[in-house]
Amino acid sequence: MVALGGSSINEMNRKIVLTNRPLGMPNVSDFELVESPVPSPGDGEFLVKALYLSLDPYQRGRMNEGPSYAAAVGLGEVMVGGVVGEIVDSKHPDFKDGETVVGNFGWQLYAVSDGRGVRKVDPDLAPVSTALGILGMPGMTAYFGLLEIGRPTPGDCLVVTSAAGAVGSAVGQIGKIKGCRVIGVAGSEAKVDHIKNELGFDEAFNYKTVKNYYRKFRSLCSEGTDASPKGTDASPRGIDASPKGIDVYFDNVGGALTDAVFRLINIGARIVICGQISQYNLTRPEMGPRFLWQLIVKRAKVQGFLVGDFAERYDEGLRAMSKWIADGKIQYREDIAEGLEKAPEAFIGMLQGWNNGKQLVRVSP
Amino acid sequence: MVALGGSSINEMNRKIVLTNRPLGMPNVSDFELVESPVPSPGDGEFLVKALYLSLDPYQRGRMNEGPSYAAAVGLGEVMVGGVVGEIVDSKHPDFKDGETVVGNFGWQLYAVSDGRGVRKVDPDLAPVSTALGILGMPGMTAYFGLLEIGRPTPGDCLVVTSAAGAVGSAVGQIGKIKGCRVIGVAGSEAKVDHIKNELGFDEAFNYKTVKNYYRKFRSLCSEGTDASPKGTDASPRGIDASPKGIDVYFDNVGGALTDAVFRLINIGARIVICGQISQYNLTRPEMGPRFLWQLIVKRAKVQGFLVGDFAERYDEGLRAMSKWIADGKIQYREDIAEGLEKAPEAFIGMLQGWNNGKQLVRVSP
Repeated sequence: MVALGGSSINEMNRKIVLTNRPLGMPNVSDFELVESPVPSPGDGEFLVKALYLSLDPYQRGRMNEGPSYAAAVGLGEVMVGGVVGEIVDSKHPDFKDGETVVGNFGWQLYAVSDGRGVRKVDPDLAPVSTALGILGMPGMTAYFGLLEIGRPTPGDCLVVTSAAGAVGSAVGQIGKIKGCRVIGVAGSEAKVDHIKNELGFDEAFNYKTVKNYYRKFRSLCSEGTDASPKGTDASPRGIDASPKGIDVYFDNVGGALTDAVFRLINIGARIVICGQISQYNLTRPEMGPRFLWQLIVKRAKVQGFLVGDFAERYDEGLRAMSKWIADGKIQYREDIAEGLEKAPEAFIGMLQGWNNGKQLVRVSP
Repeated sequence: MVALGGSSINEMNRKIVLTNRPLGMPNVSDFELVESPVPSPGDGEFLVKALYLSLDPYQRGRMNEGPSYAAAVGLGEVMVGGVVGEIVDSKHPDFKDGETVVGNFGWQLYAVSDGRGVRKVDPDLAPVSTALGILGMPGMTAYFGLLEIGRPTPGDCLVVTSAAGAVGSAVGQIGKIKGCRVIGVAGSEAKVDHIKNELGFDEAFNYKTVKNYYRKFRSLCSEGTDASPKGTDASPRGIDASPKGIDVYFDNVGGALTDAVFRLINIGARIVICGQISQYNLTRPEMGPRFLWQLIVKRAKVQGFLVGDFAERYDEGLRAMSKWIADGKIQYREDIAEGLEKAPEAFIGMLQGWNNGKQLVRVSP
């Protein structure tokens, strides 16, 4: 083997860097694939070779300048992203060559890490790609967001948006396990069919073909119940007094869907703000109807969260999710793009909802 | 004495009824003072004569048709309102003639009650009017809303709107007792002076003379601290990453003040939605900037409540507030209009912020 850039690896590193900050929906020209020597781990570090890269909506936020909950990706820097990889050169006492790990190694073939924020993955337990999906960040997001903030109880009406996505599909299935009546919103007839007929959601609709979200939710809330909804579109303050409204709303989308839900919440409703993908690619901030008054009337709670806030409890979440998967109570799908160079295209497709289930990129064969 | 309408009371009942549903700010012509015979209590009922009537923002909501958390006042019906009065004719085993009680007896001189929702008031403990203010609904609203939903901790920055009002002035003082840095927003220089110099708020401003609420809050949040704020007006998503932001927001007002606060919340902020008086008299629903994304970034909670949700714990709240008043830690003001016929005018004035402290009407001399 020939040492290249100090490494014993006989190939170049390949990485996808951000070259332009998009206004609105990103374009493949905002990214560039560059090659560079494979870095060498120092003492207390290891080199990891990527197997799968995770593409997630939050990455769109990191492309913007300015403060958020995490630093923006600099121009010319590698895009951030979760990766499952194999350790190929360890100088870290706690990590061995050949071990499989998951961490935020970015959109690149090789990365050096000091092990912080890195978790080992048992390849015998489940396909290692699940460490980026149902047994990773999206799965933990669904588990802790729904159970700790949404606090569903049997008989609750649970609405989840982006319901065929990595997070939403898990939320709906956990909701069913907890005895909820689950209504999912997705972006195609095929997704609606999947979540209703394969994942067991009670109801679902394609938001792209429904005009009046409020009426749609209102009719779905009361179907399968004894009560007919009492509210009317003409309610002067837009509040629906129907008792057959929404108890838990797990929001991945925001915008007009969320506006409609706020008009239908029940007393004591819990609204979990997990994502707002409808807002991420706007070129100008959007205005919406004010709804805080409705929170008083309905004594309701709206709460945002980041999955990292529950990091100390991931073991608990992983145990529960693994058991539900083993018992056949939770299913998952993965949508795998082939090759690191496909990441920008697959990322943009995911932001537009073209993926079916968790969007991954296979980086190494 | 001559029995009139079955009662032994030698005068007519006087009541203020709703005669028109206002669109926007109410007018005195939306009400009418009518006389009718004094009703007679049946078995298990008592007749109460009003001493003080409470005027509160929530009563505006009851003037509208349509569903809310309580039924609308019907046209021709007596306006709803809390009243402290004296029992003058009891046929109820638990209530005696001469006892002072507080209950929702409405805008009228006499009312019959079966005792449900009625609480006895000890006239030796405090002026009986306080049962409608600091030791009544507004005081309990401040106590449970701030402590149970806002959950202030020492060093927190607490912002309260309508800060010179019955609820807001108590919220700010409880915040000081709990070790918060308290910023109040009020509607006149005199009110600002009062809450800063007499009630001990750390900072206050008159929203009528401040143009840019965001900049004002930002500068007040960082005064008296080591940090200078790091956010800029130009932040692309309108989020301020400054750690010297707002931890607890007790919102009585809504609208543009609340929009500004959302841009300055700290991680883990608690936003208590108590009232939205800026919205009650709008003729058309208002649009506002969407902010749910900021709740994710800041892992923040927004929660509405009604004081009645804490009814079982009023004794605890009254004991605590009474002690703080006795210890001189909480002060209160009352603004008393003379005569039931003044209620509509005083109510409209209160909605416009002309009152200084709790707005009452002395119904009986």
